[in-house]
Amino acid sequence: MYQLHIAEKHISSWSLRAWLLLRTLAIPFAETLHRYQPDDLAAQRRAWQAFSPTSKVPVLVDGDTVVWDSLAIAEYVAEAHPQVWPQDKQARAWARSAAAEMHSGFGVLRSQCGFRLDEVAAPAISADLAAELARINQLWNEGLQRFGGPFLAGADFSAVDAFYAPVAMRLQCYQLNGCLNGAAADYAQRLLNLPAMRQWCEEAAI
Amino acid sequence: MYQLHIAEKHISSWSLRAWLLLRTLAIPFAETLHRYQPDDLAAQRRAWQAFSPTSKVPVLVDGDTVVWDSLAIAEYVAEAHPQVWPQDKQARAWARSAAAEMHSGFGVLRSQCGFRLDEVAAPAISADLAAELARINQLWNEGLQRFGGPFLAGADFSAVDAFYAPVAMRLQCYQLNGCLNGAAADYAQRLLNLPAMRQWCEEAAI
Repeated sequence: MYQLHIAEKHISSWSLRAWLLLRTLAIPFAETLHRYQPDDLAAQRRAWQAFSPTSKVPVLVDGDTVVWDSLAIAEYVAEAHPQVWPQDKQARAWARSAAAEMHSGFGVLRSQCGFRLDEVAAPAISADLAAELARINQLWNEGLQRFGGPFLAGADFSAVDAFYAPVAMRLQCYQLNGCLNGAAADYAQRLLNLPAMRQWCEEAAI
Repeated sequence: MYQLHIAEKHISSWSLRAWLLLRTLAIPFAETLHRYQPDDLAAQRRAWQAFSPTSKVPVLVDGDTVVWDSLAIAEYVAEAHPQVWPQDKQARAWARSAAAEMHSGFGVLRSQCGFRLDEVAAPAISADLAAELARINQLWNEGLQRFGGPFLAGADFSAVDAFYAPVAMRLQCYQLNGCLNGAAADYAQRLLNLPAMRQWCEEAAI
């Protein structure tokens, strides 16, 4: 069985991506939760190196194989569980592009709106942040229209939805849902209402 | 045949990753080169939207499929050309993790040492930059030792080498090769001596 190393659920959006993917697809895994040590980051780094070559999470362990990045975890798991990506080749190419765009992008949203699960005041919306929000709305509406929904690349939840679920959470918690319209607005709610997403939030409160 | 949209070769490190992967594996493609418009970024963004949903490069077009991210391109091409990733499952998991680490990381090196092909003075080495350089040296030595070289995940060039080739170029151009030791130092030279890497540099000068 896979072992998934994650960090605290009210903070770690990258942990959520891998965790939500496995949980929603009902792929069995054991979870190991690590605590942040904000008062001594050097100590945290040293401690986390015991399981992560980058001292970051998530890390998936499968026997003697260690996979230390969220997108690499998706691809690794997809080899044994093809439902990680859409079955349709075009939808799969689109889903991989959109997930990779998230993986390396949306830096303004990520830095200005650190991951959290409770609501706060909306941030000032700079031109750069507005451009990212517009792109999210455009991308989501495109995927939903092109592949028919209710998920981003078609009928079934796939890794691209896991990659954008923390974005939906940020939009809600920072009161930025106004950037969404049409199907994209409904989709954001759909992500937040996923049973695994609710479980994550409940367990974050423990 | 694949069509690959790239930007100018003396600047665009992400273009180089996809281009080098296809060229070194002798996967046929046609290339379309786009010029930066540094004096009018808004105009560039509009012009590039004709072929790229994010106005960024590289973009791979295969018939009516558009793949708009370097890592997604690697995975898309790998479906038809398995040599994009190592054959060995453990090496493949490692290679994907390392490529994904590059895809979302090494932000200090990337921002302080913009991609270029000519040598300049070494930058001031902050603690954050030093940590990234140490990680590169560690990662390269680990892969070379564990999978036996001469490439990062084994005997054959794969996508993870394509992802780190622009790093090798940065280390050379910014005179940072001193951060490498042992097999990692030889490996950096091996990347720079790849026929496709030399071709890229020659074509950049045109």
